[in-house]
Amino acid sequence: MITAAVAGASGYAGAEIVRLLLAHPDIEVGALTASGNAGTRFGDLAPHLQPVADTVLQPTSAETLVGHDVVFLALPHGHSAAIAEALPPEVTIIDCGADFRLDDEQDWTHYYDTPFAGTWPYGLPELVRAGGDKHRTDLVGARRIAVPGCYPTAISLALAPGLAAGVIEPEDIVVVAASGSSGAGRSTKPHLIGAEVMGAMSPYGVGGGHRHTPEIERNFTRAAGRPASVSFTPTLAPMPRGILATTTARAADGVDAAAVRAAWERAYSDEPFVHLLPEGRWPHTGSVLGSNLVHVQVTLDERSGRVVAVAAEDNLTKGTAGAAVQSMNLALGLPETTGLPMTGVAP
Amino acid sequence: MITAAVAGASGYAGAEIVRLLLAHPDIEVGALTASGNAGTRFGDLAPHLQPVADTVLQPTSAETLVGHDVVFLALPHGHSAAIAEALPPEVTIIDCGADFRLDDEQDWTHYYDTPFAGTWPYGLPELVRAGGDKHRTDLVGARRIAVPGCYPTAISLALAPGLAAGVIEPEDIVVVAASGSSGAGRSTKPHLIGAEVMGAMSPYGVGGGHRHTPEIERNFTRAAGRPASVSFTPTLAPMPRGILATTTARAADGVDAAAVRAAWERAYSDEPFVHLLPEGRWPHTGSVLGSNLVHVQVTLDERSGRVVAVAAEDNLTKGTAGAAVQSMNLALGLPETTGLPMTGVAP
Amino acid sequence: MITAAVAGASGYAGAEIVRLLLAHPDIEVGALTASGNAGTRFGDLAPHLQPVADTVLQPTSAETLVGHDVVFLALPHGHSAAIAEALPPEVTIIDCGADFRLDDEQDWTHYYDTPFAGTWPYGLPELVRAGGDKHRTDLVGARRIAVPGCYPTAISLALAPGLAAGVIEPEDIVVVAASGSSGAGRSTKPHLIGAEVMGAMSPYGVGGGHRHTPEIERNFTRAAGRPASVSFTPTLAPMPRGILATTTARAADGVDAAAVRAAWERAYSDEPFVHLLPEGRWPHTGSVLGSNLVHVQVTLDERSGRVVAVAAEDNLTKGTAGAAVQSMNLALGLPETTGLPMTGVAP
Amino acid sequence: MITAAVAGASGYAGAEIVRLLLAHPDIEVGALTASGNAGTRFGDLAPHLQPVADTVLQPTSAETLVGHDVVFLALPHGHSAAIAEALPPEVTIIDCGADFRLDDEQDWTHYYDTPFAGTWPYGLPELVRAGGDKHRTDLVGARRIAVPGCYPTAISLALAPGLAAGVIEPEDIVVVAASGSSGAGRSTKPHLIGAEVMGAMSPYGVGGGHRHTPEIERNFTRAAGRPASVSFTPTLAPMPRGILATTTARAADGVDAAAVRAAWERAYSDEPFVHLLPEGRWPHTGSVLGSNLVHVQVTLDERSGRVVAVAAEDNLTKGTAGAAVQSMNLALGLPETTGLPMTGVAP
Repeated sequence: MITAAVAGASGYAGAEIVRLLLAHPDIEVGALTASGNAGTRFGDLAPHLQPVADTVLQPTSAETLVGHDVVFLALPHGHSAAIAEALPPEVTIIDCGADFRLDDEQDWTHYYDTPFAGTWPYGLPELVRAGGDKHRTDLVGARRIAVPGCYPTAISLALAPGLAAGVIEPEDIVVVAASGSSGAGRSTKPHLIGAEVMGAMSPYGVGGGHRHTPEIERNFTRAAGRPASVSFTPTLAPMPRGILATTTARAADGVDAAAVRAAWERAYSDEPFVHLLPEGRWPHTGSVLGSNLVHVQVTLDERSGRVVAVAAEDNLTKGTAGAAVQSMNLALGLPETTGLPMTGVAP
Repeated sequence: MITAAVAGASGYAGAEIVRLLLAHPDIEVGALTASGNAGTRFGDLAPHLQPVADTVLQPTSAETLVGHDVVFLALPHGHSAAIAEALPPEVTIIDCGADFRLDDEQDWTHYYDTPFAGTWPYGLPELVRAGGDKHRTDLVGARRIAVPGCYPTAISLALAPGLAAGVIEPEDIVVVAASGSSGAGRSTKPHLIGAEVMGAMSPYGVGGGHRHTPEIERNFTRAAGRPASVSFTPTLAPMPRGILATTTARAADGVDAAAVRAAWERAYSDEPFVHLLPEGRWPHTGSVLGSNLVHVQVTLDERSGRVVAVAAEDNLTKGTAGAAVQSMNLALGLPETTGLPMTGVAP
Repeated sequence: MITAAVAGASGYAGAEIVRLLLAHPDIEVGALTASGNAGTRFGDLAPHLQPVADTVLQPTSAETLVGHDVVFLALPHGHSAAIAEALPPEVTIIDCGADFRLDDEQDWTHYYDTPFAGTWPYGLPELVRAGGDKHRTDLVGARRIAVPGCYPTAISLALAPGLAAGVIEPEDIVVVAASGSSGAGRSTKPHLIGAEVMGAMSPYGVGGGHRHTPEIERNFTRAAGRPASVSFTPTLAPMPRGILATTTARAADGVDAAAVRAAWERAYSDEPFVHLLPEGRWPHTGSVLGSNLVHVQVTLDERSGRVVAVAAEDNLTKGTAGAAVQSMNLALGLPETTGLPMTGVAP
Repeated sequence: MITAAVAGASGYAGAEIVRLLLAHPDIEVGALTASGNAGTRFGDLAPHLQPVADTVLQPTSAETLVGHDVVFLALPHGHSAAIAEALPPEVTIIDCGADFRLDDEQDWTHYYDTPFAGTWPYGLPELVRAGGDKHRTDLVGARRIAVPGCYPTAISLALAPGLAAGVIEPEDIVVVAASGSSGAGRSTKPHLIGAEVMGAMSPYGVGGGHRHTPEIERNFTRAAGRPASVSFTPTLAPMPRGILATTTARAADGVDAAAVRAAWERAYSDEPFVHLLPEGRWPHTGSVLGSNLVHVQVTLDERSGRVVAVAAEDNLTKGTAGAAVQSMNLALGLPETTGLPMTGVAP
């Protein structure tokens, strides 16, 4: 049995990792750690995880995490590097934070305003790069993996096939995405309380201000093989979970609807978790709730000359914890789908 | 006292008109009509409108509508022309349907596939045209007015100031908007039942398929004074009311943030219902619930070279019934704000 | 013009009072005060109240409140007495807190654990007392009024007619009520954030622990003219506003359905804000959203021998701010319904 | 491998059975059938069930169902008997409809107004009977099982321990329960569309009118060993899934809080799916979403002399499909928890 610890288990991302690990046939859940919640019975914070309700949260530190085969980090940004350095190199570390996602130090310091920690293999196996290679190849056997942000997962998977195939232009991509409020974590800010969130929508980080912007642009640049530019507007939607990403890019000259569809089919026909819906069907976040799936659809709008691709994911599952477990599977040489939910909880 | 009839009062738009008229100091509510629901006690369909709960719905026809000073039509498209022709020319008719909104017959037949009925003055007083003139001028004293679609209202108001001022380009505008499910009317389609809608988001009419697309493009073309093109993706959000429209357009060469803000301030500083929020504040649909207000904010994204403007409205109030009553006020020479809710019901 | 100040305007109750006063033809809104939010532009906290968005919140104190004809207090419990004592006796003070609601000092100290402040006339005009008299009589010309709790309003109005008429027993009343999350105020507790609240229900204060319990029992005792006992379970529902109160009591011996209905009809046939629905129609919180109405329905369950009465209200309007303004109207000799919303915002 | 067919797979209950069976290690999903939707690709109706998306629904009939080891029936009431009679006796039939739940013919005809089909073993293993025996004993090896209604599951499990232990009285039980709208099935009635359901609560079937009432009373009577009477009020809550049942009964003479807690602990300490929460913690429907768990809490309200017990379940999982699979496990001699989700999907 492989043992795994989860640092930051009291947050939404950490608890979701625990949920998935409890259903994983090859993993034994070990230490669960937290900072402010250390010493608390886990069931008081995560009553949905009955099997480990009586586990007491330990403080997050290299001491409590060492001794496990796998360590998942679900910490605020800036906290992962010190922990990672203190753990032996043979431990598989899966970081759900932002610390090792970017490869441009300038982007990091502009958006995060802390020292740049470096770059780890990017835990989005299905994401295609220019030339057709996917990020999966970087993950097999890796001991350090950076899990993508929840928005970049849906957004990158939505549009990358067209960039890699050259059927859309990487300049002037426009993305508007809606996220359920768990995307903000267990934060008790005034604008996130139920009475404010329910029944209403609002944007935030408009104008390139959201920290996931450079990660999205980097992914598109990798897919296109030349610089991409993105206008990204995230919005807060009145639902607990789910991201719906609407992405558009200018169609390349002379591209028709068949060429567009072919590009997406080529990218995803063999992928277990990324599903291009039948023509005419559009993604619905409810259909992927609690699952590791991404539903994608694409069309060519002849009127405007833009390709529109839409992706739906569960921000906590495929958007975070599912990607983490999927990356772990690849890292450890397990079948990639092991233990991961293939069906959504709907309606 | 001015008397007003509402045709189609059993639908959401019609009932909202009744709600507003009940609070209007100069209007006496007369006949309420319906098709399938004729003969029903209104309170059984609209228990929130206590003061007219015991009114019995009459069948929709010129006979039941004639004799009122004002007639509001909230009917499925294709039904307004016959009614309008049968009513005397001095009756003020406010049509909340699509029938008289477009001025391009080809657009009409492409999107609606029925005979073109014509074009009436467009009931969006605050919408600017190239040159700076607003649609308000067409409405004063008019006897036939076409109320805009709910999406075009939010979307056009969001971006038109920049087009009229020349600070953004009319080509390659991208719009993604989220609407509460009342936007689909009182329809009992399987994908609109509560269990499907709650907790989830999905797009529809993607790729230029939504019937509001040509209306939006026409409004942008009028604002810019030259042809606009739009990629429009509507999405269904888990809330009863509200539209959040995220609109983006390429900034014109050499435009800076101050020029952008100045264009929007110029357009809306004197408008009672369209409010440009203070810098740094973004629209929230909950803040305009039940009101006739549109909240707008705009920014220049230097990274992508796009201007992003966001508008929030209540699709049933300012998006439909409020615009209808506001248009009526202008038509009748009443103060424009008479009887219209200036505050939202929040949280 | 009558001037009114609102203390605690940054909370949900306070802001709702401001919303109603802005629509009141006889009131001029004066000072808006807050404690922690003093100095803040009101529009940053309450963007739905555009007309006073630029008002700056003053600190809550007798100094900032004095000089107005009416002062509304929307403060945490324990804060009203000192303010009230420092204001002249001719000022009409409407307290939305709990401080002056109870008349049993022991109940107060048991549930609130602070010194007992006294008892003011109870601002629930429609609430019947044994003998048929209503609380309205206490409010005409009063200068100090205690606005009821949001739960007690719906619950007491639901069942009091049967108690006063003797058709139900006051012992062993059982009440289960669901409230939207604005009932908890603008509190940022972890269990109130959107991700926790949406899509889920939970009870709280079970077993008589909720502070509204003694107020409910007192109201029922007053209605019955002999001691009532109540099992009260409040639950948190995934909606921003609204209370649905399901109340049941044992039918008195020999009572039939006609006698039950007659009791409720007698109590409410002349009330402008409390509406007994037609037989077969049941209350829906959405129908009273934003209005000052309470919808009530009642039935006799022959199988169990219990009468079941259900009431729906908007917890912030009739449940708090609407009752405050209604009480003010009575206190000042204005028509009771002046300025109060008679229609809900639905759907 | 054991093969299983699902009749009525296009409804919410049927689709949920499919979801659970896809995760069951011993079951192979066979025919999926429907009536009106026969011939449809399953993925068009249940896009969340990717692994069987391309299965085409067959018509529901003995011919399409025969040949499987297990047949699940998720049909409107009145349809199960004919199918069951046409299938061989050795086939394990699990009926999720009401047809075989009741044992009193008079109750059946009063509430369902169709011929009485008979009584099958009741698929609620954890439900205690007077004397302490549980229904589990009826299910081991059974070939015909009637799955309980969604409300009776939560409600009966909430209160039965106290009845069996004699710490509460079976007369004058009062139950108010809230259900998510999937409890109404995939019905497109006007009051179930999203705009009506979201943001609002309402009761229905008040006064003993709900068809689950006799089933609840029967269960309580079995638990108490003497006639129980129940006032049951169901309410519709703005959430897709989940039931929160608040149940109260008069405490027996001389009972104290310790005796109450002991009764519930005794009943559930060894149950894998029914979890009595630690003292002070109350059930939250979100915590059991998608799981087969029921969370229960109980307290003695000294003030009113009533015991209040609250249960939360997912109406589609433990409330229907989970109970069906759990019953199947018992019928086939598999470990009772096989393939059933032990964790909720939260937040």
